[in-house]
Amino acid sequence: METILASPQKEVRIGVDHPFVIIGERINPTGRKLLAAELAVGNYDRVVTDALAQVEAGAHMLDVNAGIPMIDEPTVLAEIVRLVQSVVNVPLSIDSSVVAALEAGLAAYQGKALVNSVTGEDARLEAVLPLVKKYGAAVIGITNDESGISHDPEVRLAVARKIIERAADYGIPKADIVIDPLAMPVGAVPGSGAIFLGITRRIVEELQVTTTCGASNISFGLPGRDTLSAAFLTMGIGGGVTSAIMNPLKPETANAVRAANLLMGHDDNAQAWISANRPPEAESGTERAVRSRRPRRE
Amino acid sequence: METILASPQKEVRIGVDHPFVIIGERINPTGRKLLAAELAVGNYDRVVTDALAQVEAGAHMLDVNAGIPMIDEPTVLAEIVRLVQSVVNVPLSIDSSVVAALEAGLAAYQGKALVNSVTGEDARLEAVLPLVKKYGAAVIGITNDESGISHDPEVRLAVARKIIERAADYGIPKADIVIDPLAMPVGAVPGSGAIFLGITRRIVEELQVTTTCGASNISFGLPGRDTLSAAFLTMGIGGGVTSAIMNPLKPETANAVRAANLLMGHDDNAQAWISANRPPEAESGTERAVRSRRPRRE
Repeated sequence: METILASPQKEVRIGVDHPFVIIGERINPTGRKLLAAELAVGNYDRVVTDALAQVEAGAHMLDVNAGIPMIDEPTVLAEIVRLVQSVVNVPLSIDSSVVAALEAGLAAYQGKALVNSVTGEDARLEAVLPLVKKYGAAVIGITNDESGISHDPEVRLAVARKIIERAADYGIPKADIVIDPLAMPVGAVPGSGAIFLGITRRIVEELQVTTTCGASNISFGLPGRDTLSAAFLTMGIGGGVTSAIMNPLKPETANAVRAANLLMGHDDNAQAWISANRPPEAESGTERAVRSRRPRRE
Repeated sequence: METILASPQKEVRIGVDHPFVIIGERINPTGRKLLAAELAVGNYDRVVTDALAQVEAGAHMLDVNAGIPMIDEPTVLAEIVRLVQSVVNVPLSIDSSVVAALEAGLAAYQGKALVNSVTGEDARLEAVLPLVKKYGAAVIGITNDESGISHDPEVRLAVARKIIERAADYGIPKADIVIDPLAMPVGAVPGSGAIFLGITRRIVEELQVTTTCGASNISFGLPGRDTLSAAFLTMGIGGGVTSAIMNPLKPETANAVRAANLLMGHDDNAQAWISANRPPEAESGTERAVRSRRPRRE
């Protein structure tokens, strides 16, 4: 199973037979007061620099969100979608909890977008899925519903199944559903990594859909967040997770994804790994020969 | 299933319901010319410092190997076992390809040792398993046999099954077998991480034994070895690997194991994680209050 997203210039395939797909999370004013203030007055400079920097750092897609209180979110999100598509050529994930904003973003988008997101709540399904169908998009399905986020894997699996079935009612194929199994902060829910892996495995094997996750939630409230995110992503990739909404500008996390791609057989001749991890000063042949005659380090 | 090892002072349990067991690999002259030269002349100072440093760094067990050409390996290994047990109180893994050295090491050891290792080769099984039984030890079973290391998961699983069955013939229970599914260098075998995870999963689910692995082989010949080992261990722990023979003195790898333990629910209240990753300067309440009034970082 694979999920295909596209811009006019690029196609991205999410799936276990492909390298992990990094969806850059930075174009989102949530928790970024400066960006929020700038967007509120129509200054989009930071959106452009964030878009360029994330793609440069290896993002295969970008998530775009304009969720600021008191602004005309549909208009702003549509403007950001157009602006980002004018400076980078990766496909976008249109991110909003406001249905009108999702529609405005989708209308402005050129290509096949990813809608972020729909839950298993009936009202959300009925509002979002028609848009996904109308614009030929794919959609992230989050495994919570009216009752919240269950700790019971059976319930989360049932929510994922409900989203897939309801999407089918609207004529949306399973290939266009990307399920987020939901990772809870491990500081609050002990063993949330293991729980996540267990649910992910069942989603991949029993429902046969692609998956995504947020990489930063897991480490909420703890020190060493980048290392924890890196470990979470690595475990997840080993367990079948196929994409994440994450910050590609964090070197430790980005390199963990490269390592995981290599280990999973998705880095031909280790090219991506070697090019990112080559020692800073490449030695000449002579230097190497001299060094090789010295005793080994103890 | 769990495998229990012991020194007179300490018991270590290997199993998916326990934190990952780190078996320190440093007391091994292979590739360490200085240590080899010292051992050859009876100088064991480095053995003592290596033992202390590894336990200090978090090793739960230590592997001891005296494999130097032209020395009386049984005598030296027995001496090292006694010496190491006199300075640290963790259980040991007695490591040799020489059966007489394994026996000498086991005879010198106090407690329940781990024998490193037996393969699926008939001659090795017949030589090593009686010693394991005689000394009440546990044993690492490596999934290769006379035909080498197969790339076929079915063959490797069959080798593991053979080791377990042959051990049973000698009265050695499954709880005393720790299987090494064998990770090949990912630079030579593309996707060897995924292959390893697949074999491990079948070993854990179908054979229900504990597992171990070497953490450094995977990155052979590639740059960024510590990061690759860290990613490999993290993936492995997510996939059910329960111990590794590794270098606990590498901070990146050791911290990856801590992160994985936390994610898997084996670090109560995140105590080990927080104590190893606490920011270097703990802030006072006043400093924190001041900082919280500043605008968020953008």
